Amino acid sequence: MNVDWVTPPFDILRFAHIELVVTDLEASRGFWVDLLGLVPTEETDDAIYLRGLEERLHHSLVLRRGPQPLVDHIAYRVRRPEDLDLIADAYAALGCESRRVEGVEAGQGEALRLHDPLGFPLEFFHEMDQAECLLQRFDLYRGARVTRADHVNIYVPDAHEGFELYRELGFRCSEYIASDRDDRLVAVWLFRKQTVHDVALTTGYGPRVHHFAFTTAEPTAINQYCDILAGQHKEGVIERGPGRHGVSNAYFVYMRDPDGHRIELYTGDYYTGDPDHRPIRWSASDARRRTFWGHHVPDSWYEEGSFVRAPDGGPAELHEPILDERLVAAE
Amino acid sequence: MNVDWVTPPFDILRFAHIELVVTDLEASRGFWVDLLGLVPTEETDDAIYLRGLEERLHHSLVLRRGPQPLVDHIAYRVRRPEDLDLIADAYAALGCESRRVEGVEAGQGEALRLHDPLGFPLEFFHEMDQAECLLQRFDLYRGARVTRADHVNIYVPDAHEGFELYRELGFRCSEYIASDRDDRLVAVWLFRKQTVHDVALTTGYGPRVHHFAFTTAEPTAINQYCDILAGQHKEGVIERGPGRHGVSNAYFVYMRDPDGHRIELYTGDYYTGDPDHRPIRWSASDARRRTFWGHHVPDSWYEEGSFVRAPDGGPAELHEPILDERLVAAE
Amino acid sequence: MNVDWVTPPFDILRFAHIELVVTDLEASRGFWVDLLGLVPTEETDDAIYLRGLEERLHHSLVLRRGPQPLVDHIAYRVRRPEDLDLIADAYAALGCESRRVEGVEAGQGEALRLHDPLGFPLEFFHEMDQAECLLQRFDLYRGARVTRADHVNIYVPDAHEGFELYRELGFRCSEYIASDRDDRLVAVWLFRKQTVHDVALTTGYGPRVHHFAFTTAEPTAINQYCDILAGQHKEGVIERGPGRHGVSNAYFVYMRDPDGHRIELYTGDYYTGDPDHRPIRWSASDARRRTFWGHHVPDSWYEEGSFVRAPDGGPAELHEPILDERLVAAE
Amino acid sequence: MNVDWVTPPFDILRFAHIELVVTDLEASRGFWVDLLGLVPTEETDDAIYLRGLEERLHHSLVLRRGPQPLVDHIAYRVRRPEDLDLIADAYAALGCESRRVEGVEAGQGEALRLHDPLGFPLEFFHEMDQAECLLQRFDLYRGARVTRADHVNIYVPDAHEGFELYRELGFRCSEYIASDRDDRLVAVWLFRKQTVHDVALTTGYGPRVHHFAFTTAEPTAINQYCDILAGQHKEGVIERGPGRHGVSNAYFVYMRDPDGHRIELYTGDYYTGDPDHRPIRWSASDARRRTFWGHHVPDSWYEEGSFVRAPDGGPAELHEPILDERLVAAE
Repeated sequence: MNVDWVTPPFDILRFAHIELVVTDLEASRGFWVDLLGLVPTEETDDAIYLRGLEERLHHSLVLRRGPQPLVDHIAYRVRRPEDLDLIADAYAALGCESRRVEGVEAGQGEALRLHDPLGFPLEFFHEMDQAECLLQRFDLYRGARVTRADHVNIYVPDAHEGFELYRELGFRCSEYIASDRDDRLVAVWLFRKQTVHDVALTTGYGPRVHHFAFTTAEPTAINQYCDILAGQHKEGVIERGPGRHGVSNAYFVYMRDPDGHRIELYTGDYYTGDPDHRPIRWSASDARRRTFWGHHVPDSWYEEGSFVRAPDGGPAELHEPILDERLVAAE
Repeated sequence: MNVDWVTPPFDILRFAHIELVVTDLEASRGFWVDLLGLVPTEETDDAIYLRGLEERLHHSLVLRRGPQPLVDHIAYRVRRPEDLDLIADAYAALGCESRRVEGVEAGQGEALRLHDPLGFPLEFFHEMDQAECLLQRFDLYRGARVTRADHVNIYVPDAHEGFELYRELGFRCSEYIASDRDDRLVAVWLFRKQTVHDVALTTGYGPRVHHFAFTTAEPTAINQYCDILAGQHKEGVIERGPGRHGVSNAYFVYMRDPDGHRIELYTGDYYTGDPDHRPIRWSASDARRRTFWGHHVPDSWYEEGSFVRAPDGGPAELHEPILDERLVAAE
Repeated sequence: MNVDWVTPPFDILRFAHIELVVTDLEASRGFWVDLLGLVPTEETDDAIYLRGLEERLHHSLVLRRGPQPLVDHIAYRVRRPEDLDLIADAYAALGCESRRVEGVEAGQGEALRLHDPLGFPLEFFHEMDQAECLLQRFDLYRGARVTRADHVNIYVPDAHEGFELYRELGFRCSEYIASDRDDRLVAVWLFRKQTVHDVALTTGYGPRVHHFAFTTAEPTAINQYCDILAGQHKEGVIERGPGRHGVSNAYFVYMRDPDGHRIELYTGDYYTGDPDHRPIRWSASDARRRTFWGHHVPDSWYEEGSFVRAPDGGPAELHEPILDERLVAAE
Repeated sequence: MNVDWVTPPFDILRFAHIELVVTDLEASRGFWVDLLGLVPTEETDDAIYLRGLEERLHHSLVLRRGPQPLVDHIAYRVRRPEDLDLIADAYAALGCESRRVEGVEAGQGEALRLHDPLGFPLEFFHEMDQAECLLQRFDLYRGARVTRADHVNIYVPDAHEGFELYRELGFRCSEYIASDRDDRLVAVWLFRKQTVHDVALTTGYGPRVHHFAFTTAEPTAINQYCDILAGQHKEGVIERGPGRHGVSNAYFVYMRDPDGHRIELYTGDYYTGDPDHRPIRWSASDARRRTFWGHHVPDSWYEEGSFVRAPDGGPAELHEPILDERLVAAE
């Protein structure tokens, strides 16, 4: 990968949270709070605001009751309040209108919302209330011992096109999967904070959210969580893993919530903060790229995902992908 | 160690449980159930019967309210009901009277009770009610994720004398610590079930109980439990460890309950079931014998212990030990 | 399961070793020693004798060069030399001739060899040379940090018939899988030492060996070993797992050696030594029975296995099984 | 802690490496390479350049032969080559002369060297050769499975004065220990990369280096390393731990190399990259601050450290500290 990295005038810190529309708030609470162990910071009639044990901001996940499962928006935190204006300008130059919202999310100050050229509903914000960090309240740890939100992974019809867009926003690439035949990008991992990624792009029917991820305290927490699930006969929520990723080197498991939203537990990637950090290339035909131990990836993992809210409020229409990683892998 | 092993006519299966006299049953419940995570099988006005997550018998620990901290008795399970008579005969030959009790402990059938020549209150039993095994109810795991009772460790004035007594009962030796000067036994580990020990003898003011131990699911459970304690500022109950033992190779931590009774969490020893299994000798001057990593052992661990109930109901009088391991180590 | 357990006059201690015929001794050495980390006690022109880090006998695995992959024999250790005569009598009563061998296996004394009524080549022995226990030589640990041989798992056409045979030899049952329709046994786990099994019977084309297993020091050793394999692009030897078993509760992974022999790494089952230990029943339709986390078991795992040596020296002919667990599961 | 953070015109990325003067290069190689498992990138007659398994730059530790143990310099990497001029200016304003060196360290481009107002020999550099990242070559992992250099911890006579200096260079504070009596700083943790620290200041006789730290792949790697040490009777190099830190929440162990230089293995701290990340205050009287589990810290850990090279080439003279944490803790 031989590209120029960009330093835009604004500073996107990191992936910060996601807002999910769920159809049964009580069932979702059972999954995210009682089972997984996320901490509720605030609950209203139609929404629950959650955070991980390490987190110090008001929320890193919002569950909001609605008529059909959707991703309402994906949110990034910016370094300074004034970055919001600069980001609005940048998207305007791409033909995307944005608007300010305030008071829509509990605990959050003014935010910028827009639909990006790929069709994703995004939010940028700086101000959010602080919440108590529970990192050393080990007596309160439950379920998967979830520490913090780490990244979102999105389906786009063409990962290369998506990569170009994020590159212009200042994202850097840590790893990517490419076809050996024509070197076309199949998937790409992009970061702002000093880890492997804040957002990953997976080629597929898009715009959809493939999954988002929380970190856990250690790899053992992931196995223990699978035990906890199976102990109450809920092993059916596990879709893939546990295992070690080739890309990112993290230990992981994927699960599906009551509405089918996919959540990853993820721990143990690496530092990417040096300016000459070089992207790692994986061949699409290397069986280790998705699970380092060569495990088969189920078709549901390649095919299913969450619809995102379109400007009209309903689910965004999908566009056909330019390739299928499973076919490229078999070439 | 060059001795003959004995196969008596009776068959002691294993260390089975201990009954502690505690002065504040509610405080003890907080320690053993709420904090440590033992499972209460039955509770009465003045006693709590507890078991580990793997266990299938009614109890492996009894907490009974009383005016001063004591060990009421140490219990071993035998293979057949008729072993009780044979064991009564064996102790009678040593000058120790025994008596039958029934209905004294909830969930337990007829038992034999006696004071052995070393002054310890012992119980032997075969019959006990079955309880639900919770080994795979990982959703119910709490605290230290304690699986089963493993062994008791007792202070005797002369480990060699104690060793001879237990050898006649069919116990085998897995490991021992000896003085390099005169090869005198300093401490010895003895087993009936196929692990490193059911009972260990530590030279010190006796008869007293040094500690008893439960196993945990894995080594990580021990570190996580220390975190849980410190998370609520109760790290003061930790007396020694975590660390790896030289003797037994197990990963361990020692704690003190509200009455000062010492409990060990212990995991990862080895199989000892072959008839030609040879005892391992440790020199008293090998810094690794107690903690393999060479850690200093606090004086309290060498000096403090639980008094045992004497035939008159009060604490048994102590006898001076023939040596002090710390002095032998420094020779 | 409502059966009577048998106490025969002889005492089989435990599964002790297996002898594999391998076609390329150098390649096998690469797998078992260099990669997996077993310790070679002795090597001859045509055989390698291996043991785990905890073991104190000369070998728990023999690799012997031959023209086609086979299991030469499965060996059990007995408590006393005179048990060999008693076992010979017991098999004679079943119509199975046996013979004494001595000096055939390095480090081993006199042994009894025979083919049992199920067609398996078995060996019973008492005498074997001691070897250095390396349990605390952590500086020598390599690969999967393998500690000791644990069990063998064999394909038999009818698990119920096999169970009856082993029951008469004094084996006890810890767990079994049964059909919900007619309660017919699908697979059964049988033990002599105080763990979940020494031998398991899996319904399938038999006589064949499904796999044999070594224990590892801790669950993390299994994940680390998968990393080590994939780090040198040898992840292809992994067939199933890692994961937690429903049956036995152990953490496991299955691999295939250069000749296709299947090896399991296995750690964390439980104590079974009490005489009233009750077998656990699993329904063939419980997705958790094979992998507690509900993972799909690959067809190769249900279908493939090692041929065993017949009395004529070649591979034993196979008999069709009475059922297929996968079909029973789907009923 | 109520202070203003500074954004200087230059950008110090992170603590990058340390150069130790060692008296017996072969003995040091035994400790750092053979035992600990660091990877030698390059070796010359009088120096060894080492890196961790995750690292992509030429070295993160230099061992150089010399007549007496010293720290030759502590090195920080800067984002851009032109940062060196800006940093030289900043130190000049503090009265510290600096000089350019090139070709002194293998694999490194031009660097800036100086003695700071606290008396420490520092190096700043941008250019360094890339080396192969071995993060997923798990087959090459040895010893403590060390991943990357993380931080340095230095003794200064007054942590508050040192804090002010580093604050001006753009460092942020994650945690600190303060006296309850007068709120005076006892120790302080300062970061540039998005972790708990790149440099920590400990009040004591200074200028000296207290220790520097490498991360390991997981907490289990630290326990396993202690086992590896003790397995060959080298447990004497362990000075403190393993245990969990209160400050930083990391799992740790401290060891001493053949010259007495102190090395920490450290894993599992947390993300600090948000601009409103608030420092955590620990009372000097909280027993959990140094080891969360309340363990006693040995006096050697408070008193001993490595001398640093003074401008004249010899060890820098020491200045008396303004307080002793152990006395403040007892107030």
